[in-house]
Amino acid sequence: MRIEEDCIGKLPVDDEALYGIHTLRAVGNFPISPERINPLIVQSLVQIKKAAAEVNHAAGTLAGDKRQAIIEACDALLDGEHADSFIVPAIQGGAGTSANMNVNEVVAHLAERNHPDLKISPNDDVNQSQSTNDTFPTAGKMALLEQLPALTRAIEQVIDTLQAKGEEYEHTLKVGRTQLQDAVPTTYGRTFEAYAHMFQRDLRRVKQAGETLRTVNLGGTAIGTGVNATPYYQEHVLDVLNRNSQLDLHAAEDLIDATQNCDPFVEFSGAMKALAVNLSKFSNDLRLLGSGPQDGLAELHLPARQAGSSIMPGKVNPVIPEVVNQVAFEVIGHDTTVTMAAEAGQLELNAFEPIMFRDLLASERYLQQAMQTLVRHCLRDLTVNQNDCATDVEKSAITATVLTPYLGYMATTKLIKRALADKESVKKLLLQEELLPADLVEKLFSPASLTHPREPKAKVTQA
Amino acid sequence: MRIEEDCIGKLPVDDEALYGIHTLRAVGNFPISPERINPLIVQSLVQIKKAAAEVNHAAGTLAGDKRQAIIEACDALLDGEHADSFIVPAIQGGAGTSANMNVNEVVAHLAERNHPDLKISPNDDVNQSQSTNDTFPTAGKMALLEQLPALTRAIEQVIDTLQAKGEEYEHTLKVGRTQLQDAVPTTYGRTFEAYAHMFQRDLRRVKQAGETLRTVNLGGTAIGTGVNATPYYQEHVLDVLNRNSQLDLHAAEDLIDATQNCDPFVEFSGAMKALAVNLSKFSNDLRLLGSGPQDGLAELHLPARQAGSSIMPGKVNPVIPEVVNQVAFEVIGHDTTVTMAAEAGQLELNAFEPIMFRDLLASERYLQQAMQTLVRHCLRDLTVNQNDCATDVEKSAITATVLTPYLGYMATTKLIKRALADKESVKKLLLQEELLPADLVEKLFSPASLTHPREPKAKVTQA
Amino acid sequence: MRIEEDCIGKLPVDDEALYGIHTLRAVGNFPISPERINPLIVQSLVQIKKAAAEVNHAAGTLAGDKRQAIIEACDALLDGEHADSFIVPAIQGGAGTSANMNVNEVVAHLAERNHPDLKISPNDDVNQSQSTNDTFPTAGKMALLEQLPALTRAIEQVIDTLQAKGEEYEHTLKVGRTQLQDAVPTTYGRTFEAYAHMFQRDLRRVKQAGETLRTVNLGGTAIGTGVNATPYYQEHVLDVLNRNSQLDLHAAEDLIDATQNCDPFVEFSGAMKALAVNLSKFSNDLRLLGSGPQDGLAELHLPARQAGSSIMPGKVNPVIPEVVNQVAFEVIGHDTTVTMAAEAGQLELNAFEPIMFRDLLASERYLQQAMQTLVRHCLRDLTVNQNDCATDVEKSAITATVLTPYLGYMATTKLIKRALADKESVKKLLLQEELLPADLVEKLFSPASLTHPREPKAKVTQA
Amino acid sequence: MRIEEDCIGKLPVDDEALYGIHTLRAVGNFPISPERINPLIVQSLVQIKKAAAEVNHAAGTLAGDKRQAIIEACDALLDGEHADSFIVPAIQGGAGTSANMNVNEVVAHLAERNHPDLKISPNDDVNQSQSTNDTFPTAGKMALLEQLPALTRAIEQVIDTLQAKGEEYEHTLKVGRTQLQDAVPTTYGRTFEAYAHMFQRDLRRVKQAGETLRTVNLGGTAIGTGVNATPYYQEHVLDVLNRNSQLDLHAAEDLIDATQNCDPFVEFSGAMKALAVNLSKFSNDLRLLGSGPQDGLAELHLPARQAGSSIMPGKVNPVIPEVVNQVAFEVIGHDTTVTMAAEAGQLELNAFEPIMFRDLLASERYLQQAMQTLVRHCLRDLTVNQNDCATDVEKSAITATVLTPYLGYMATTKLIKRALADKESVKKLLLQEELLPADLVEKLFSPASLTHPREPKAKVTQA
Repeated sequence: MRIEEDCIGKLPVDDEALYGIHTLRAVGNFPISPERINPLIVQSLVQIKKAAAEVNHAAGTLAGDKRQAIIEACDALLDGEHADSFIVPAIQGGAGTSANMNVNEVVAHLAERNHPDLKISPNDDVNQSQSTNDTFPTAGKMALLEQLPALTRAIEQVIDTLQAKGEEYEHTLKVGRTQLQDAVPTTYGRTFEAYAHMFQRDLRRVKQAGETLRTVNLGGTAIGTGVNATPYYQEHVLDVLNRNSQLDLHAAEDLIDATQNCDPFVEFSGAMKALAVNLSKFSNDLRLLGSGPQDGLAELHLPARQAGSSIMPGKVNPVIPEVVNQVAFEVIGHDTTVTMAAEAGQLELNAFEPIMFRDLLASERYLQQAMQTLVRHCLRDLTVNQNDCATDVEKSAITATVLTPYLGYMATTKLIKRALADKESVKKLLLQEELLPADLVEKLFSPASLTHPREPKAKVTQA
Repeated sequence: MRIEEDCIGKLPVDDEALYGIHTLRAVGNFPISPERINPLIVQSLVQIKKAAAEVNHAAGTLAGDKRQAIIEACDALLDGEHADSFIVPAIQGGAGTSANMNVNEVVAHLAERNHPDLKISPNDDVNQSQSTNDTFPTAGKMALLEQLPALTRAIEQVIDTLQAKGEEYEHTLKVGRTQLQDAVPTTYGRTFEAYAHMFQRDLRRVKQAGETLRTVNLGGTAIGTGVNATPYYQEHVLDVLNRNSQLDLHAAEDLIDATQNCDPFVEFSGAMKALAVNLSKFSNDLRLLGSGPQDGLAELHLPARQAGSSIMPGKVNPVIPEVVNQVAFEVIGHDTTVTMAAEAGQLELNAFEPIMFRDLLASERYLQQAMQTLVRHCLRDLTVNQNDCATDVEKSAITATVLTPYLGYMATTKLIKRALADKESVKKLLLQEELLPADLVEKLFSPASLTHPREPKAKVTQA
Repeated sequence: MRIEEDCIGKLPVDDEALYGIHTLRAVGNFPISPERINPLIVQSLVQIKKAAAEVNHAAGTLAGDKRQAIIEACDALLDGEHADSFIVPAIQGGAGTSANMNVNEVVAHLAERNHPDLKISPNDDVNQSQSTNDTFPTAGKMALLEQLPALTRAIEQVIDTLQAKGEEYEHTLKVGRTQLQDAVPTTYGRTFEAYAHMFQRDLRRVKQAGETLRTVNLGGTAIGTGVNATPYYQEHVLDVLNRNSQLDLHAAEDLIDATQNCDPFVEFSGAMKALAVNLSKFSNDLRLLGSGPQDGLAELHLPARQAGSSIMPGKVNPVIPEVVNQVAFEVIGHDTTVTMAAEAGQLELNAFEPIMFRDLLASERYLQQAMQTLVRHCLRDLTVNQNDCATDVEKSAITATVLTPYLGYMATTKLIKRALADKESVKKLLLQEELLPADLVEKLFSPASLTHPREPKAKVTQA
Repeated sequence: MRIEEDCIGKLPVDDEALYGIHTLRAVGNFPISPERINPLIVQSLVQIKKAAAEVNHAAGTLAGDKRQAIIEACDALLDGEHADSFIVPAIQGGAGTSANMNVNEVVAHLAERNHPDLKISPNDDVNQSQSTNDTFPTAGKMALLEQLPALTRAIEQVIDTLQAKGEEYEHTLKVGRTQLQDAVPTTYGRTFEAYAHMFQRDLRRVKQAGETLRTVNLGGTAIGTGVNATPYYQEHVLDVLNRNSQLDLHAAEDLIDATQNCDPFVEFSGAMKALAVNLSKFSNDLRLLGSGPQDGLAELHLPARQAGSSIMPGKVNPVIPEVVNQVAFEVIGHDTTVTMAAEAGQLELNAFEPIMFRDLLASERYLQQAMQTLVRHCLRDLTVNQNDCATDVEKSAITATVLTPYLGYMATTKLIKRALADKESVKKLLLQEELLPADLVEKLFSPASLTHPREPKAKVTQA
């Protein structure tokens, strides 16, 4: 065991360990859950350390051999080596200092191990020109951005699949339902397209909110004044970081503001929440339209994915939409957490970024995975029960809505009530009583007429 | 009493009443709260009725005399006449049908009253080419858009006031605080500017989300297929409505989607929630920085607005930020409601739009009023206790952070601990022990150096 | 105009006004919404003023003529006189001081008006031995308790109605559905009873949480130390208040704690939220089971309450459950607000009680009204489509679940799959293939067997 | 690889695997997060399987050798063997069927492995008399109850520690603060006691809500009718389960209700949320009272736990309260998720129990761990800065509140304003101006008088 010291006192650290005293203190202080800091945050911090070393050297504030040793250590870590050295908990007090110091310590020790002649300080060298105040939120944003393309691709896949379904069922009539009561008909083509359009808004929102995450406060050091960084460093560190990470980050115009205010996380969480709301509504619809097989709407066949019951044989449940619903509820819960954490920031810093990043990264990943399983295991092979849908529309009394420009609302009401009471088709009653010419009736009850605006020059009722 | 009839049966209606049976049924069905449907929704529905009458006539589906009578009635209502005829409750079942029918009935009865020769049907004439499915959400969006400029203006006033304060206190040093512990210093100029920048993001978000509300589904009629509307109507109704309302509405590309999915409301609510989060954080900071007068931070003097206590004489409390906090909590609660209501939509319609509009309109208005009282009654006349702030920075040990590039993190730590223990200034200790040249010490502890990046060519510690 | 003065300065007050300068300042400071402080809070504060006057006199700290004048004024206000004098906004900063001072001022001025010889101070006399810190939360709890019996009675009515429906449909078989897929059958009797049992838990929870509201901090004055109250007052004020109000209040054991911590409101809100969750689930079920009339489950007929559509004739929607859903969403939103407001309390007081009381009182009232309309306008006259339900069970393949103890899970699975594919009844297939004795088959498919545990001595499959 | 079959088709399973086809399908269907089903749920399910085997045998529906084999397998699993066989994800669709089948399969295969002569069916034997509908929610409740004592013990430790602190600082005067403005004084003894009393309500609430979890629906099988269970099984299974688990479970009166309604989870979540609110308020207070060291309130010294900054030397932050805040926010987020999931239940089942259990178990554990670290690493060694506190009270002008019974509110107001303006002590001004007798002044400004009700026979101002 080696002995390390900080401003609190001394602590023995395992000789083999690359982490040090700051890391160990965090492990002891925050035994909330077994979940460790997200590896994407670690990778992003390492990227920052690497870029800082390069720029600090160029600024003349870090010696060349130290620069080299730090960069080598970072490269090894970026290759995935020593991943088990990052042991600080995901839920941690201290505004991310423990995560930042875990990385500072591992980089420093690894650099020293490879260059025993050098003395590399976690604070003075690895963390030079940096503060947790700027590195941690920057790393959190980088992690979110790393995951973002997979999320947007998953939304795109949902959209593409729905559009393909829309084309497949372009002409499949279906009963419309508003407030769960029979309404005028539409087609499954339009139904699937409508969902596709809905998710296009999500794609726009998630991308838009994602873009705002590229604005970072790196270079602001403590509280955003940039104290202890050099102007050279401030000017160049993001260029180097972008070259390495390909994330297209840019510096916030106001580093003080960017250090203390967490509304961009509320914004990004809000975009994911809107997606969750849409996914949940969509899943509810899938489950409802697929209800049955005998005593439900039974318009959709969702692919059978697993036996649905340990006791009821042959039962198959809509397990994929169900898991999507649950992810949606979790994401909406995370939004509550992010909202409260953002609101709780005080003065020059928000101390609660760790829980925000934990939940935002989880939401992003869960949504992506949920949409992926939704596409693969439910949407692609979903089919519509076309025959039953057609029959349902044919016998649906509410289709008589198309008669109101000709008969008026009240007369049509009576006709529909009679049809329902007599279990008779409205069309038949109409023809029987010769209320309208037979050819007009045929035309009005054609699929095109039932599901589109009426023809331009219809008779004026009031004339 | 006159007798009116609907598909349920008959009901007596007061002879004087402009509303009719549908309105009365709603009043009986939804006695939840005394709050009536928002007048801005009523006004927007009337605007829609007026535009529809004009376009239906041009399409050849509404006779000229009816057109005239309806438009006259609408104009009277838009002038604020008969406002007490709109009595359906704000919280109502039925997806807004009651609100729409209340307007249809009042317009029809008023038109008939003025033109006793005409028979104007609430459904066939006033509601012609329309459905609650398209008029109600369109009217809700119009109401939100009517209130939007006042909201964005209020945000702008907050920003302007903060920027002026920033200029006023550009050179006022203050202690920074992260995690409520003393940190490196900054200035009140930057502090106020940082808030201004924060609220600029809110302005961007609220405007951006507000823009999406201009996309409406008017013309979609029932479920969005446009059934019973004419293509002519669909093509022209928004032009006429825009000409009258100046709201720059445009038709959704997919009317089916726009009729059933409520994510634009989640989006707009989310933008207001982010604003609420920022306002609450800002109010918390104001209250904290203004705490005292003797046993708090006492850096800010918030204008005294009222006696603070019924028992403690002379006590003055930060009542304006307190009411802003409460508005923020209410808006965040509304966001929960909107989220749940949007998620609960099913198939071709969301039946829960009434509660969404009630809460969104309330949030919009409360935020605007809260910011207005914040500017007028708190921010404008707020002053900074400049002398105390300067003294605090001078004696603050943590300013020694600027020494770490020269002494290293560990040595500086010890210096600070000693300064705190001995209640001695770091600067004095430094000079006493001759750890650094006196002129460098002076320079490092100058306001500029304490609050800015360090000079380019600083000595490399590691050399 | 008369001129009044407070610690801020002077203000003209209308000569006729019973309120004074503190009230006017609040009106100017908090123009958030037109909603005024809840009249039940006002009435409760007046009750407190009346009790305090009596006890202060008995304690020897208030002269007899002042006591008399204050009590007379309170009695007039309790009779509903001068209700328009209570004009401070519902959403107010200042932890309720404005509400308390509005009442202090009106009582004092009214007492003086009736006794021109006396000088009654709002603070020294009417508010004697009190602070907003103890009177406002006590009054808020009293207001909630005043409304509580109506809320619990409404829950009881829901329960009673459901139990009556349960008896009415005791023997009506229905298909069970889990995850919206057909499951083993049950009866509508049990279905209604199950809802009744669910709401009994709500009744228990609401009563239990309501009881905790009887613990008040009256007598604690500022921050709960009781400063400026006499021990005599502390000992007797609740007795007098209880005698007048019949609310069975009792003093908190720890007045300091009771003054600063708002978890009892979180608890009460949580009980209402659980009720909202159950009401929403129940409303969802009603709407789903009543879906149709032709293309839904159509098992329930909900009473028709109003025409459902402005365009689709004869359409009738489940407007009563829909309004209940919306109330549930609003109550859940209020719970978010109450949670945030309670969490935001600091040190010796929670400044955000006004928004908590506003939302809690609204939730309580909305829930009560929603349940009342639910009982009267939906549940009482709801009927079950018994014939269709019976037929559905008869043809339901999943009833074959009862065969698994005889045939095993896998063999039964195959049988069910065949029945569904061939659109044949399982029973018929069973008899056809002579898989089990005919009389056993008859017995197994009897209603009793399908919906109850199997008979004790069934054959052991594994033997 | 062996081939297994279900109602969907065939799948190869690793020969070594104890799980089977149902488990594998779940793993493929729900790749949301790497988190597996909570081991406490697995253990509880195994307990249920063991009890069921015993009771089914006694009921005559399970052969003796199978009973023996199943019980042996369960015992091995309860000893922790084969823990890596339970691989279904924590977030899963299907209402828990995958978790239940994972256990059924592992028990069956393990039993068969140990008894190659026997054929044990996961469904017909291990799951006999059971359904996921009753076993999964029962197991979820058992898991929550297993964790409950640790949670309540942690609350008790917080209470005990606070009471000890209360005794330690019984006589330490401190300034009170309401709305962050100076208020009448109190003592740290009362302050700590008040927190202790607050947490006693949490203890009561958590225990009370925890008790309701002992009511389970085991024996209800599918949808709660008990279909396929024997009456003997229903009567005895809980006795055996209680004997083994010591959890004191009892059967719900209405198994149908208990199967479909999830309000008990909302209730339990609500109790944890109230605890979270109190913990967050308390943590906020600790951080505020401990703010400093130079430019904050600095009344409390929280034990230093780790270096607070990677850049600012010697900075120590309140990391333990900060992690408690974050846990509180997470728990409040989980409450949102549980609320939405409970509300989304439909008809005879709530399909979303998996996410509820995931979040409830996490909340329970996080809260317990957070309180434990709070006690150990913050509260126990916390000290009060007694000297400064005493000085602050002495110079505090607002203590003049005790004068109002003698001087009246307005005169005292003026005195306080003068004292603040002149930076003079109120007491000195009083004596100087001989407004009250010197001995009365001394008495009024004594600690006892400042923090307690005034003496019974005080002079009547109005006399």
